Amino acid sequence: MNPPFNLDSFDLKGYLNERAKLVEEWLEANLPTPVGPHAPLIEAMRYSALSGGKRIRPILLMAAVDAVGGNGPQYIAAASAIECIHTYSLIHDDLPAMDDDDLRRGKPTCHKVFGEAMAVLAGDGLLNFAFEILSRTHLYPGVSDRIVLEVIRVIGEASGINGMVGGQAADVLMEGKEVDEKTLNFIHTHKTGALIRASLRSGALLGGGMGEKVEALTQFGYFLGLLFQIKDDLLDIEGDEKVVGKRLGKDAKMKKATYPSIYGIEATKEKAKSLLEQSLNLLSDFGKEADPLRAIAQYVVNRTR
Amino acid sequence: MNPPFNLDSFDLKGYLNERAKLVEEWLEANLPTPVGPHAPLIEAMRYSALSGGKRIRPILLMAAVDAVGGNGPQYIAAASAIECIHTYSLIHDDLPAMDDDDLRRGKPTCHKVFGEAMAVLAGDGLLNFAFEILSRTHLYPGVSDRIVLEVIRVIGEASGINGMVGGQAADVLMEGKEVDEKTLNFIHTHKTGALIRASLRSGALLGGGMGEKVEALTQFGYFLGLLFQIKDDLLDIEGDEKVVGKRLGKDAKMKKATYPSIYGIEATKEKAKSLLEQSLNLLSDFGKEADPLRAIAQYVVNRTR
Repeated sequence: MNPPFNLDSFDLKGYLNERAKLVEEWLEANLPTPVGPHAPLIEAMRYSALSGGKRIRPILLMAAVDAVGGNGPQYIAAASAIECIHTYSLIHDDLPAMDDDDLRRGKPTCHKVFGEAMAVLAGDGLLNFAFEILSRTHLYPGVSDRIVLEVIRVIGEASGINGMVGGQAADVLMEGKEVDEKTLNFIHTHKTGALIRASLRSGALLGGGMGEKVEALTQFGYFLGLLFQIKDDLLDIEGDEKVVGKRLGKDAKMKKATYPSIYGIEATKEKAKSLLEQSLNLLSDFGKEADPLRAIAQYVVNRTR
Repeated sequence: MNPPFNLDSFDLKGYLNERAKLVEEWLEANLPTPVGPHAPLIEAMRYSALSGGKRIRPILLMAAVDAVGGNGPQYIAAASAIECIHTYSLIHDDLPAMDDDDLRRGKPTCHKVFGEAMAVLAGDGLLNFAFEILSRTHLYPGVSDRIVLEVIRVIGEASGINGMVGGQAADVLMEGKEVDEKTLNFIHTHKTGALIRASLRSGALLGGGMGEKVEALTQFGYFLGLLFQIKDDLLDIEGDEKVVGKRLGKDAKMKKATYPSIYGIEATKEKAKSLLEQSLNLLSDFGKEADPLRAIAQYVVNRTR
């Protein structure tokens, strides 16, 4: 049972722009300034972290804070840390030894501009920077040290071998091979899903959410992560390269296993529809404060980039 | 003024072996098991983390705990986290795009065995794993959450752009260029020094050390880091490849700036001697509990590998 809510009355585009701008401004102000003998490294980090992007993970973290009755933008530092982790993963995934991408968000990838060595280190730098930010307790007023530590653990696990890194490894290892549903699920839930789930869980914890609500938002994050990946796979087949801002059709070329390649396009769209419904059901005990999350889930399925 | 202490009565070799074994065993037991679609990633992480090495950073962390009156081995988890960060940095530094090394600790480097993609991800995995371990509060009985968070911050800063990653970037960027003393100092204090300093500081904090003692051990770590790098530079010129276990003479070939290349071998040895003296002076207020640190400082200068 979904609660009554009217998407039309909610200006999602304005909301997303406003929240993305907060992330943009925080990163702009808090990423180090490129001075010293390692200046190009910092330039590379800034180049990738400030090159636009949907900022969906940090927006989700803040939206989860709001959903449990907190004030999302108060946790902009933690939200931006998540975006740094996401950016680091993109930089490393784009490397020639990995997906070998030369275009990202419509711009040349980090290693294309700064070289491979700087790209590896810029990724490393952003990952470390994220944990530095997360451990600066003064950035989380009113949050207990115990909760800050729990958030670090949630995010560390989500971005590590039992999360994003593990998923990316499996993805690389399976390229060109026959992949069964179990493995495909592993890749999706780990590579994209883990950090999205962690964004929701971290926001719920930082916002002071309790037991069941934290679990509901975590599970919502799980479904949303799957939706995200499935939609990415569909866009890789049906999207417009100019709109999406990166090379498309790569999955088929690389013979990557995707939902559409295993189940076909129509069944995949059905799966997306059913996942959306389940996600919305998870929010049935939440009030209007969770409307942005509801709207985002719909947006993920309907987006064109 | 150095306190009276007799190196001859201290079995440094036995001590180092025993403590290194603790690290070895902890990593063996706590690094994930290679199962699942990302098994080769975990194998790559284990390969590099369990391929021997001096384990000097974790040993220093535990020795700093001891020096302030705590029980070093009680903090084996934090010590091993530092070793994971060190190992991640070696894996990334060895990549073809960076130092392009094919030999490490007498064995083929990670990317030589598992390929570049897995090596990048194994490094990422170890870095994340370190922060996961550091945030698991039950591993640090009797330590307040506030101190655990401070340790995470100390280690995060030391391994990031204002530490190891920054130093490695500067090192890569300066290859083949004229380097002045200031830049050389930046590289040394950041690339090697920062994590050694963080090991000492973390140990002092975890062991319950207060104010001046924490600062003294941190500064000791600073000098020790410099000593370490200077000795590495000397070994690259004068060492025996079979004993050191990696390719030597690379600095000269790559025209890397080092202390010996700027000041000459003899002046560098004098500098090492003076730094050793300053390090020992910092420990003058510490009792016999700091003997291992004193012995290690001497060992760093006298080692042949």
